[in-house]
Amino acid sequence: MTMVNSENLDRFIGLARGRMEADLLFKNVRLVNVLSGEIHSTDVAVADGVFLGFGDYTAEKIIDGAGRYLVPGLIDGHIHIESSQILPAEFARIAAAHGTVAVIADPHEIANVMGVAGVEFMLAATAGLPLSFFFMVPSCVPATTMETAGATLAAAAVTELLKKYPERLLGLAEVMNFPGVINRDPETMAKIAAVRSLKRAIDGHAPQLSGLDLNAYVMAGPKSDHEATTVAEAREKLRLGMHLMLREGSREHNLADLLPLINDYNSCNCSLVSDDRHVIDLLDKGHLDYSIRKAIAGGIAPLTALQMATINPARYFGLADRGAIAPGFRADCLLLDDLESFSINQVFLSGKPFSEVGFATSQVSLPRHTVSVAKLGLESFRIVVGGTEIKVVGLIPGQLVTEKIILPAKISNGFAVADAERNLAKLAVIERHHGSGRIGLGFVQGLGLKRGALASTVAHDSHNLIVAGMSDSDMLLAAQVVKDMGGGLAVVDDGLVLGRLPLPVAGLMSVEKAETTAAALTSLQDLALGLGSVADPFMTLSFLALPVIPSLKLSDQGLVDVDEFSLTDLWLD
Amino acid sequence: MTMVNSENLDRFIGLARGRMEADLLFKNVRLVNVLSGEIHSTDVAVADGVFLGFGDYTAEKIIDGAGRYLVPGLIDGHIHIESSQILPAEFARIAAAHGTVAVIADPHEIANVMGVAGVEFMLAATAGLPLSFFFMVPSCVPATTMETAGATLAAAAVTELLKKYPERLLGLAEVMNFPGVINRDPETMAKIAAVRSLKRAIDGHAPQLSGLDLNAYVMAGPKSDHEATTVAEAREKLRLGMHLMLREGSREHNLADLLPLINDYNSCNCSLVSDDRHVIDLLDKGHLDYSIRKAIAGGIAPLTALQMATINPARYFGLADRGAIAPGFRADCLLLDDLESFSINQVFLSGKPFSEVGFATSQVSLPRHTVSVAKLGLESFRIVVGGTEIKVVGLIPGQLVTEKIILPAKISNGFAVADAERNLAKLAVIERHHGSGRIGLGFVQGLGLKRGALASTVAHDSHNLIVAGMSDSDMLLAAQVVKDMGGGLAVVDDGLVLGRLPLPVAGLMSVEKAETTAAALTSLQDLALGLGSVADPFMTLSFLALPVIPSLKLSDQGLVDVDEFSLTDLWLD
Repeated sequence: MTMVNSENLDRFIGLARGRMEADLLFKNVRLVNVLSGEIHSTDVAVADGVFLGFGDYTAEKIIDGAGRYLVPGLIDGHIHIESSQILPAEFARIAAAHGTVAVIADPHEIANVMGVAGVEFMLAATAGLPLSFFFMVPSCVPATTMETAGATLAAAAVTELLKKYPERLLGLAEVMNFPGVINRDPETMAKIAAVRSLKRAIDGHAPQLSGLDLNAYVMAGPKSDHEATTVAEAREKLRLGMHLMLREGSREHNLADLLPLINDYNSCNCSLVSDDRHVIDLLDKGHLDYSIRKAIAGGIAPLTALQMATINPARYFGLADRGAIAPGFRADCLLLDDLESFSINQVFLSGKPFSEVGFATSQVSLPRHTVSVAKLGLESFRIVVGGTEIKVVGLIPGQLVTEKIILPAKISNGFAVADAERNLAKLAVIERHHGSGRIGLGFVQGLGLKRGALASTVAHDSHNLIVAGMSDSDMLLAAQVVKDMGGGLAVVDDGLVLGRLPLPVAGLMSVEKAETTAAALTSLQDLALGLGSVADPFMTLSFLALPVIPSLKLSDQGLVDVDEFSLTDLWLD
Repeated sequence: MTMVNSENLDRFIGLARGRMEADLLFKNVRLVNVLSGEIHSTDVAVADGVFLGFGDYTAEKIIDGAGRYLVPGLIDGHIHIESSQILPAEFARIAAAHGTVAVIADPHEIANVMGVAGVEFMLAATAGLPLSFFFMVPSCVPATTMETAGATLAAAAVTELLKKYPERLLGLAEVMNFPGVINRDPETMAKIAAVRSLKRAIDGHAPQLSGLDLNAYVMAGPKSDHEATTVAEAREKLRLGMHLMLREGSREHNLADLLPLINDYNSCNCSLVSDDRHVIDLLDKGHLDYSIRKAIAGGIAPLTALQMATINPARYFGLADRGAIAPGFRADCLLLDDLESFSINQVFLSGKPFSEVGFATSQVSLPRHTVSVAKLGLESFRIVVGGTEIKVVGLIPGQLVTEKIILPAKISNGFAVADAERNLAKLAVIERHHGSGRIGLGFVQGLGLKRGALASTVAHDSHNLIVAGMSDSDMLLAAQVVKDMGGGLAVVDDGLVLGRLPLPVAGLMSVEKAETTAAALTSLQDLALGLGSVADPFMTLSFLALPVIPSLKLSDQGLVDVDEFSLTDLWLD
């Protein structure tokens, strides 16, 4: 993906020397130079989508910056595109409008549904888009053995992918299985060794890992982390040589907490990332522009904030011609009306104004029909009494971590049932990849539902069909609706389908425009609120099947005691 | 050369986790952390020459730092080892005592004498030394077509070398032929294209290049520069994305002048380098420790100065496990009594104290007998009168640039001769690689000699035999002495050899101890002073045959008008 190469080098040297006319010349701009660390007035020439240099050039087209700031386009070093719930091209259209010009994405979610084919779909769906999509190869598919994913990405497949797409796959994505690393699990180590020998980046993911265990993890190879939530945790990681990715996403908001750590000597080891950016937030708040504004508001110098979203991630990933405005760099840049408020006036992608580039998904067949669920009936959701007390997933507002709560079961006709009085909904995770008919059943406290049911095929990391409800019949209907759509979200009440959002692409992404999808989602959230639910219950649901985050979760294989890292019975005794 | 690899990774993870005893534990130290940009107290464990991490480890040996600072060892990103005039092992011994743990050297000088064999000698002579020697492959051998070098390094040879020694040859050394780059000379471009496609570093060398020509040069590939002498020049290079190497060498002293450019946003794009460090300076003043002290004295924060001599050059060259104290990094570090004054208490190389490592040159045969000079006679030095006025090389004190001066020749018996009254010495450059008998003759003003002659086989870049003298007979004797030694330096007066220093290794390096060589050199300098010469005349002489630096130089092919980049007649008319 480097723009200047052995074939065209000669031409670019001639262009840079001004021997031929440039395509574009930015005049009357204040260049925010992330390399020399200063703001200086200059003219900047572009040809064939590449910056040529500064100075007196002739060009076919002159852009008069009218004294505006010219800054490099923004680069998100860690994001899961699928979490936006829109197709990559739509993501690109909205993100680019907010100044994003490149992402390093981890297609972990679609890989859990479809394996190598999922990764290759993401590559194909983003090929040729004006926003550059680089990817890391998912390292942990499936995330655990206590859930059923749609596919497995073994060490051999990881290596093969990296070799097959050396320009677009930059390394190994967040190595979530840190116990596997420090205990030297052979399969995990095989992936790491392969990527090490290819000298590619290895991203880390080690929430709360510390001390000698963290030393061992860093020794193994992961050289970034985006999971730190406190200054103390982030400081330890930075000290050990990890590139610190300060996360400000739709789900996690760690940026403000970590800003006090940044100083003049370490900011070059820090980047701003989102991890995920939901379509609603993307439209309402923006992307890295939002993070930059937040960082500046938190006391970070604008130039430092900009470096953390441009040259710093580019360098961490070894992208030699990204993240700066200098000869040979891709001409991705922004004109800002104001630097402090980071108000974007115009976005240029590879030298072309945003208004002149297209964001149509390339001709690639969309992976639909990924939902394979065995025949469901009311009996599928029934929990036969097996004792008196049950282990309940206890929600903690604003956190992914859950509590393990012990409660007396509410019994009705020999079955354990939901109980609105105690804010207790029934929870089901239905295996949806292989039509096995496997269903994990349990209860969650704190979701708020008074009646009805919600269903979704977005449920990290295996993305099985998760259903929460107050009656088995509504749960059945919700599940059935989602199944019939080939994936998506549904809200049901008293035998009526109140709303649905098809996510037919791998059961994760909509085929509609971003704005349409966002509106549909907002409407679904409102409908769920009407049933008494907490805000954004689908986001909450999507993490209830994730058995790598403490303490109690539910997978298609049953209740998971994450602290014990093992399946556990619903009934206490 | 990475210490941790796929074979031993398992063991290192176990060591980092504290499952086995470490070799060494630094206790009671204040770690100057170049990654997190802070100074923090911690214990640091080492095993198998590698840092394991911080914290509670058990170790075979405890080093009580007594509250001293622990800092990473120093890395010189650009140096010509041959210029020290001692063998690499001796260089290593002295430099390591001053805190240097790694160098990225350009074996340009020996390559001009011996080509590929010279580069391979440097590789062999440094293999296994406790100080790490990385090399860049010389890009410009010979430097010009207006001189006769001992060998040629064509694009094919450059590529072959890089492929043959991928761990120790990091890229293409300073591309001095910037006219060749911006004019797209095919041979120069072939070298650059080959190195670009291998994705290795390309060092620049572009004194005073500016504007669109500099844009074109940077576009071509060179991404560092160590030739900037003013803030304005350095700033332009930094803005364009060049890694700025602030040079403080034996010959050039640019550091103090460039320090005002450094700020909190750009220091990570700057490194401290020496370019050359003569054995006398190495012993008297030190190496990068000297530069750090100078930078701190110039107002740079100690942590920034340290980063510029450790992690910054390591990153520029892609040395992933050098330049910091963190898990997986090579355990090269220094204990300092004081940070501000950078007073080194103890040096550790790969975890071993300086006092316990050896610096013997590995079993490699030294390249002697590289001096092949045709039979010389008095007539070799005679200049038959060819006019009335001559073009004289005019020295400018403290500069490598010379003036072109026109003076009436002093004629004696039909020959042009030296003239002490006008501070005019005769100059001869004798081709010494192929025994061709070719001699360039001319005059230099400002060397100070009243009588006698000086001769040397150290004469950049082709390292022919250069002789300056006040009489042909003394010049003949001096040349003869140097020839008979197989290379070196000599001082002659009135038919007597006053002193000599054999440099039998490629005619560039002594086989003696550093201290012995330095003493011999000092003594020769004193002898030359006795003949009236300027201070350090051999350094001055060594640049009089370098036809890439303006304005008038002398090669074996004759007088070179560098401004015209062509050979020129001695006689004006």
